[in-house]
Amino acid sequence: MASQAQANQPANGEQRGLFITLEGVDGAGKSTHVQWLAERIAEYGVPVLTTREPGGTPLGEQLRELLLHHDMHIGTEALLVFAARNEHLQTRITPALEAGTWVVCDRFTDASYAYQGGGRQLGEQRIAVLEEWVHPHVQPDFTFLFDVPLEVAWQRVHGGRNPDRFEQEEGAFFERTRKAYLERARQHPERFCIIDATRPIADTRATLLEQLARLTGEIPSGPAS
Amino acid sequence: MASQAQANQPANGEQRGLFITLEGVDGAGKSTHVQWLAERIAEYGVPVLTTREPGGTPLGEQLRELLLHHDMHIGTEALLVFAARNEHLQTRITPALEAGTWVVCDRFTDASYAYQGGGRQLGEQRIAVLEEWVHPHVQPDFTFLFDVPLEVAWQRVHGGRNPDRFEQEEGAFFERTRKAYLERARQHPERFCIIDATRPIADTRATLLEQLARLTGEIPSGPAS
Repeated sequence: MASQAQANQPANGEQRGLFITLEGVDGAGKSTHVQWLAERIAEYGVPVLTTREPGGTPLGEQLRELLLHHDMHIGTEALLVFAARNEHLQTRITPALEAGTWVVCDRFTDASYAYQGGGRQLGEQRIAVLEEWVHPHVQPDFTFLFDVPLEVAWQRVHGGRNPDRFEQEEGAFFERTRKAYLERARQHPERFCIIDATRPIADTRATLLEQLARLTGEIPSGPAS
Repeated sequence: MASQAQANQPANGEQRGLFITLEGVDGAGKSTHVQWLAERIAEYGVPVLTTREPGGTPLGEQLRELLLHHDMHIGTEALLVFAARNEHLQTRITPALEAGTWVVCDRFTDASYAYQGGGRQLGEQRIAVLEEWVHPHVQPDFTFLFDVPLEVAWQRVHGGRNPDRFEQEEGAFFERTRKAYLERARQHPERFCIIDATRPIADTRATLLEQLARLTGEIPSGPAS
């Protein structure tokens, strides 16, 4: 973590905030933990911003509406996600981090690798080009990946009904998305913590607290040298 | 032109439509000629579609509204323009061209090089990356660039008032955009025709007709061999 955090330090010597993302497929339960994690960070006396993608800005929320409710070509979807992300980074995330605020974000670019790259099969390489275009120098400092098998996510999202033919197709989409997420974690072990989201919430929170204690160890007790 | 048109031929041997774009700064008067040119093409018995960017699809028109009326970071603007373009190409332009329909489009990617790349100073290289991402294999077959000096465009857009300080800044933006358009024409002489848009409309139409006669010379008189 030290090298990761140092790589993101601004040139002026001020202490930059940490950028923490929560990732996972629908039904993994990550959104439950966003606000809770931010409250625990605040207890360390650290300023913290919670936000989400796609969205996070007035323009981004309008793009989110289009993404959720408008049919579009997969390439268009990827470009819109990164347009919203560019606005989010430029107007909220980066200014917050540079001011020393920690940012807890519900989904970020790993979700593009998982959903558009894996689930929709656009491929890792085409996502990598957009990532390089939008944020060549910013990466999350730490990422919690909430991982669940299809059956559990299904139970949570659909309430246990038997899947019909269309929903089974969704199952294949889910498996590709989950696999792409796990591949991201394999490629970036230095910042990923995989959480088995089938376990009780109390266990998950214990893991979050443990990692948080480690991360806050990087906060200087006095002025930055 | 022959090599350009051949490069765009579909593999199935059908005659692909030609893709014609009209470009130029605001006040160059190009939009006056879009429908007129399409009508002249139709007189050759060729199916023709007129469209515009940003826009051209229901989603693209919604993105156009955001682009025209919402403040945003320049990188966001470029990504939204290319998102709208991707949708336009995938759902309207390419299907039309493949069906043998000619497409007359009011602005296309040259406008991104001119406005976002030049006017807003994002730079040619960053536009080139998005162009390669969205349409590595499609280019206009022919482009009419309506060129006018600042004074004439100013007169047309603002009705001859003396520019204030803010509007003079717009003047510098105009000059960068115009210069980037002319640079595109210099780089792609095989498809660009620069029209001196200070001349009378009748002269411009004579030039359009002359080029059209040349382009339609490529339409086969019988079934494609």
